Amino acid sequence: MYRFNNDYSQIAHPAVMKALSDTEGKSYGGYGIDPCCKKAAKMIKDRLNAKNSDVHFLVGGTQTNFIAIDAALRPYEEVICADSGHINAHEAGAVERCGHKIVTIPNSDGKISASAVAKIAQDYKESVIPEHVTVPRMVYISFPTEYGTIYTKKELSDLYKVCKKYKMYLFVDGARLAYGLGAEKNDVKFEDFAKLCDLFYLGGTKCGAMFGEALVINNDDIKPYFRNMLKQNGAMLAKGWLLGTQFSALMKDDLYFKLGQDAVKQADRLKKAFARKGIKEYIKSPTNQIFVVIDKALEAKLSKDFVFEFEGKYDSKHDIVRFCTSWYTKDEEIDALIKAL
Amino acid sequence: MYRFNNDYSQIAHPAVMKALSDTEGKSYGGYGIDPCCKKAAKMIKDRLNAKNSDVHFLVGGTQTNFIAIDAALRPYEEVICADSGHINAHEAGAVERCGHKIVTIPNSDGKISASAVAKIAQDYKESVIPEHVTVPRMVYISFPTEYGTIYTKKELSDLYKVCKKYKMYLFVDGARLAYGLGAEKNDVKFEDFAKLCDLFYLGGTKCGAMFGEALVINNDDIKPYFRNMLKQNGAMLAKGWLLGTQFSALMKDDLYFKLGQDAVKQADRLKKAFARKGIKEYIKSPTNQIFVVIDKALEAKLSKDFVFEFEGKYDSKHDIVRFCTSWYTKDEEIDALIKAL
Amino acid sequence: MYRFNNDYSQIAHPAVMKALSDTEGKSYGGYGIDPCCKKAAKMIKDRLNAKNSDVHFLVGGTQTNFIAIDAALRPYEEVICADSGHINAHEAGAVERCGHKIVTIPNSDGKISASAVAKIAQDYKESVIPEHVTVPRMVYISFPTEYGTIYTKKELSDLYKVCKKYKMYLFVDGARLAYGLGAEKNDVKFEDFAKLCDLFYLGGTKCGAMFGEALVINNDDIKPYFRNMLKQNGAMLAKGWLLGTQFSALMKDDLYFKLGQDAVKQADRLKKAFARKGIKEYIKSPTNQIFVVIDKALEAKLSKDFVFEFEGKYDSKHDIVRFCTSWYTKDEEIDALIKAL
Amino acid sequence: MYRFNNDYSQIAHPAVMKALSDTEGKSYGGYGIDPCCKKAAKMIKDRLNAKNSDVHFLVGGTQTNFIAIDAALRPYEEVICADSGHINAHEAGAVERCGHKIVTIPNSDGKISASAVAKIAQDYKESVIPEHVTVPRMVYISFPTEYGTIYTKKELSDLYKVCKKYKMYLFVDGARLAYGLGAEKNDVKFEDFAKLCDLFYLGGTKCGAMFGEALVINNDDIKPYFRNMLKQNGAMLAKGWLLGTQFSALMKDDLYFKLGQDAVKQADRLKKAFARKGIKEYIKSPTNQIFVVIDKALEAKLSKDFVFEFEGKYDSKHDIVRFCTSWYTKDEEIDALIKAL
Repeated sequence: MYRFNNDYSQIAHPAVMKALSDTEGKSYGGYGIDPCCKKAAKMIKDRLNAKNSDVHFLVGGTQTNFIAIDAALRPYEEVICADSGHINAHEAGAVERCGHKIVTIPNSDGKISASAVAKIAQDYKESVIPEHVTVPRMVYISFPTEYGTIYTKKELSDLYKVCKKYKMYLFVDGARLAYGLGAEKNDVKFEDFAKLCDLFYLGGTKCGAMFGEALVINNDDIKPYFRNMLKQNGAMLAKGWLLGTQFSALMKDDLYFKLGQDAVKQADRLKKAFARKGIKEYIKSPTNQIFVVIDKALEAKLSKDFVFEFEGKYDSKHDIVRFCTSWYTKDEEIDALIKAL
Repeated sequence: MYRFNNDYSQIAHPAVMKALSDTEGKSYGGYGIDPCCKKAAKMIKDRLNAKNSDVHFLVGGTQTNFIAIDAALRPYEEVICADSGHINAHEAGAVERCGHKIVTIPNSDGKISASAVAKIAQDYKESVIPEHVTVPRMVYISFPTEYGTIYTKKELSDLYKVCKKYKMYLFVDGARLAYGLGAEKNDVKFEDFAKLCDLFYLGGTKCGAMFGEALVINNDDIKPYFRNMLKQNGAMLAKGWLLGTQFSALMKDDLYFKLGQDAVKQADRLKKAFARKGIKEYIKSPTNQIFVVIDKALEAKLSKDFVFEFEGKYDSKHDIVRFCTSWYTKDEEIDALIKAL
Repeated sequence: MYRFNNDYSQIAHPAVMKALSDTEGKSYGGYGIDPCCKKAAKMIKDRLNAKNSDVHFLVGGTQTNFIAIDAALRPYEEVICADSGHINAHEAGAVERCGHKIVTIPNSDGKISASAVAKIAQDYKESVIPEHVTVPRMVYISFPTEYGTIYTKKELSDLYKVCKKYKMYLFVDGARLAYGLGAEKNDVKFEDFAKLCDLFYLGGTKCGAMFGEALVINNDDIKPYFRNMLKQNGAMLAKGWLLGTQFSALMKDDLYFKLGQDAVKQADRLKKAFARKGIKEYIKSPTNQIFVVIDKALEAKLSKDFVFEFEGKYDSKHDIVRFCTSWYTKDEEIDALIKAL
Repeated sequence: MYRFNNDYSQIAHPAVMKALSDTEGKSYGGYGIDPCCKKAAKMIKDRLNAKNSDVHFLVGGTQTNFIAIDAALRPYEEVICADSGHINAHEAGAVERCGHKIVTIPNSDGKISASAVAKIAQDYKESVIPEHVTVPRMVYISFPTEYGTIYTKKELSDLYKVCKKYKMYLFVDGARLAYGLGAEKNDVKFEDFAKLCDLFYLGGTKCGAMFGEALVINNDDIKPYFRNMLKQNGAMLAKGWLLGTQFSALMKDDLYFKLGQDAVKQADRLKKAFARKGIKEYIKSPTNQIFVVIDKALEAKLSKDFVFEFEGKYDSKHDIVRFCTSWYTKDEEIDALIKAL
C-alpha cells in the first residue's frame, strides 16, 4: 500500500530524526529560551537577510494561523481571505473563536487578486456608517494555496502594495512553503517574504519536520508580547528546543528547500503520467499536490494499492481526487503508480 | 423637512410616553423583576397562546441578536443566515466577537430557502472530517427582512422543518415584526411564531416603543441561565420596568399590531404614487420599507424637502434609495411627498 | 411603603422627563450622531475644561465597564481592582467574558491603595517568566466605591502616578459620581477627573437620568474605533439622542451635581438619626449609601414600612443592611424613617 | 553541570524514543484517527478499568487545561481552584481568554478542601441576585499540586462528593501524575481517577514522553464534540499517531508508573540528605519536587555545579529554592549533589 493521500503521514526526515536523537541525555532550558531555538532563528533570519525580524516556533498550522491573526487584530477588525482559505474552510472556526470576522473572496484556483482585496478596503472606506461593519485590517493568503497553486512575485507584490495602501497586514500561510518555493515555475525567492509581507511561516509539519512551524514577523507592530499570546493559547512548547533543533536541521545546507524541490519533481513525473493517459488535472498545480478528474472504474482499481484523497464528485462517472507527493516520496512509489496507470 | 430615512427617528407612541410618565414618583424593583415586566410578559404569552415560553426584555436589536445566538450555540457551532442578514452585514462583527462563525447563503430578495439551508446541513453531515468545520446549529432569519420582504407561512414552516430535521434552532429577528405582520399580503399570524421557531423577538425600538425588544424563547434548551447571559453582556437594564411598561402599553388593545398596519398602509399609498410616476421598485417590499430606483435629478430635487436613505448606485443616471414609513408617519407627510413627485 | 433599597427605583428627574417629552414629534439622526449628543458632550467637556477628551453615551454601567476595559486592553493584559469592585463581584463575569483576567486587591472600606497597586506592577516587572502571567495594564476604581466611600484627591493622584509609572490606565467607574462629588468631605473636583485618570464616567442611571452613562476618554490611546466597540457589543443605542437629551438636562445649571448634594444631605440626616439611636455604621460612608449594623428585631419592625437591602449577617442578633437615598428622596420619607427609629 | 531545575529538560525516555523511531518509513492517517492512538487509548482505559471513558491526546498542559475547562463550561460559569493553581498563576490568562472566571481559594500547601469548595457553592446558592455572579460549575485541582503535595483518597472523594452535590465537575490536572502516584505515602490508585473525578489527564511531557498529555473524560456531558474543541483551539496534532505511539510505550509494562516511582525515590534520597544537613523543607512534598529553605552562601556555592530554581526570598539570609528529580535523574547526579551538600 502506497500512501499519496497527504504530506504528513510519515514521522520526519532522517536528518531531523538524527538531530533530535542527538539531544538524548542533554538538558535544555524551557519555553523556547534555549540555544537550539536561538540558532535556528538566526539561520532563518540570515537566509532571509532579515536581521530585524522575529522568529517564533509553534507546533501546528491552525495554531499558528489563529494566534498570528489574533495578535495582529483588534476585536472589531476583520481578516480577508479566499473562500477556499484554510482558516475559512478547515479550521473549525478558530479565527472566529478569537472574535474576528473572516471576509471571503471567491477564489480563482485558490488565489485572490490585489484588485478584489482593494475593492473590499475601498468599500469600507466609503461606507456610510463605518462603525456598523468590521474594519479590514489583514489579508491572509497561502503559498502554495489549498489547490497547490502559487502566487507570482508580481501578484504577491501587488497584494502587498494594496495592503500598505489601506493599512492592512499581509499574512502568508506557508504550511507547504518548501513545495511552493520548489516549483519549477516559481519566481518568488525565500528572501522575498522578508520584504513582501508582514508575517509568514515556514511549515515544518508537512515539509520534513516531525512537527512545527516557524513564524517570521517582519512588522514591528505585531512583535510586542507575542510570547504572551503563545502561552495564553497553549502554543508555547515546554520543551521548545525540540522545535529549534528540527528547524536547525532543516535549514542546514538548505535541506528544507531541497526537500521541496524533490517532492515537486516526483509530482511532475506523476503529472506527466496522468497527461499521457489523458487524465485531466482539475486544477493545474505546479507544486506537490495533484488534483485530477478520474474515471470511477480506474479510481476503484487504483484504490487497491494506493491511498489518495477523495475531493468531490465531478460528474456521474468521474470523481476529483488528490495525490500528494512529499519529502518522503520514493522513486519506486511513483514508478508503481505510473505502472498501475 | 420630512423624514422618511428610517423608522427610529422619533421618541415613542403617545400611549407609550403616557405609560412611562405615569410611573413618575413610583418605585420598582430592579433588573426586570417587577410587576411591569411580569404583566407585559403575560400579555405577550397570552396573545401568542404560549404559556411555556419565556419572555425577556432587552434594549436593542444587535444586543438581542448576539446574546440569543450566544446563548444557543457552543463555541464550535455556526449560525446560518442570508448574506444580507443584519447580523452579517450591519452589526460590526458582534456574533463573531462571541466566537461564532456566520455561514451565509446568497439572499433572494433578502430571504433564504429551506432547501439552501438543508444543503449546508446535509453537506456538514457528509463531511469527511467533521471536526475540521463548524457545526450548523442555528438558522437566523428576519421577519421582515432587510429588504422589507416577508416569508410566507409555507416558507417559514419549511425552514422550521429543516431545522428540526437537522437539529438546528430557528431564530427570527423581529426588529420590524409589527410591519411584517401588518402587511396586506402576510399570511403568518403572530401566534405562529410560538410554533414555527425556537425563539424570536418583537421589536419595540422601530415599532412604537422608546426603545426595547421583547425576546420570546419557545425552546426549553435555550431557557436556562438566560438572565446570566443578559447580565454578563450588559443587557440587563437596571430599571427593567421601563421595558415592561412600554410593552404593556404596546400590547394593550393590540396597539403594536395596529401601528404596524397603519405604517404599511402609508407605505402602500407611497408605492402606488411611485408606480403612477413610473418609478420602479428595486425590490418589491410589502412592508414599511420602499426601495426605489430613482432618477438622480428627481433625487436631488426631493432631497430639499425630504430625508431618505441612499442605498447604492443603480446605473449612471439612477440611484437606489429607501423610503421608510413608521408608526409616526402622518397623512400630510405622505401627501406632501406624493405632491412633490 | 418607602423605598431606600437602591438609587435606581424611580424613572427620572422631572427636568429629564421634560427634556425627553419635549422631543415628541421631532426627528433625529440615529446612532448618537445628532445635535443632542453633540451638545451634551460639549457641555460635559466645557464643565471639565477638557477640549480634547472624547465623550460617548452608553445605556448602563456593566456595559460601560466591560467595553471601556476591552477597548483598552489586549488579550494578555489584566485589570486590577478591589475584591469588592463591581466588575469583580456583581457583573456576572463580563470582563472575563471579554477575555481579560481581573486581579484583585483586598479592599479597605471598598478602596485600594497606590502602594498595593504598585506592588502588583513591580512584581510583574520582576517576574522570571513574564510571558506566563498576564500583564497589568489597567486599574479600575469606583468613585464612590461599593461601600459608598470616596478617594481623596491625594489618593487619586497617587494612584494615577503609579499607573503612569508602570504604563497602566486608570479607569474610574462613576456610576454614582454625583453622590461622590456631593459628599461634604469630598475634595476631588469634577474637573480633576480630566487630569487624574485615563477614562471615567458620569453615571446617569442612578443619578437623575432615566438611564444612561456618559463615558469620558482622556487618553488618546483608547479613543480610536471606540464607536466600533460600542456597536459590536450592542451598546450603540439606535435613538442615541435620548441619551444626549438626558445628559444635556442634567448638565444644565449643574443639576447633576445638585442632585448629588441633595441626596447626600438626606443621607447625612439619616446617619445622624442612626447615631443618636446607637445604631453603628458598618462602614463609614460619606455618600448616599448607609451601611448599618441593625438589631434583627428592629430590622423586622422597620421592614413593614420601609424597603432596604440585606447585605449579610453581622452576628447571631444583628444584620448588616443598606439604606440608599437618591435624587428622588423626599424630606417626608426621611422624616418617616427617623420617626420609626 | 547537573540540572535539577525542572522535570522537562530532557527529550524522552529511551523506550519512547525507540517507539517513535520505529515508525520511520511507516505511514499513518492524520488527526488522531490511527491505530497508535486507538491502541494507547485502549491501554489507558483497560488499566483504569473504564471502558466508557473517552481518551484524547494533546500536546501540552496549558492547552489541555483551557480546552477541558472550556468544553465543560458555558460562558457564565466559573471554575474554582487554589490561588496557587497552575491555571490561575502560570498560564497567562488562558482560561479567562476563553471567557471564564477563575474563583480562587487560598491554598493550604497547594491544596484546597472540600469544605472551602462547598462554601463557595453554597454562597452562590444563597445569593440574592444569582444572575449577577458567575455560576460555580467546575473545581480544578492538580495531582500532585504546584508544591508537590498530593490529595489523600479521602480528600479526593470528599471533593468529588461536594462537586456532585452542587452539580459541579471535578477536573484533575495530572501534568505530574506519575510522580503523585509514585509517592510512598500516596493512597490514591490510578484507577480511582476513573471514579473520583469527571475528567483528568496523565501528563507525558514531564513524565517520560517527548511531549503530550492524555486526557480522560469520564463524564458523558463533556464528551460530545470534544474533537471540534481540539481542532478549533489548534490542539489537534496533524501527526496524531506521534502521541499514541508515545503513550503506548509509556503504558507498556506500567513504565509510566515505574518512572514516577524511580524519580520519587531519588527525591527521597535528596530530602534525607537535606534533613541530615539541617536544611528545612519549605513545604513537605512527598513527590519529585523539593522546596527547601537554603542559606544564600550555600545557594551560591551549589549554583556552580547544579541548576535549580529560585522560588522566592525567605528572609534576609535565606531563599526558597526548588530541586526537581525526574524520570531521567541518575544515581550519580544525586550522589554528586549529596556530596556537595
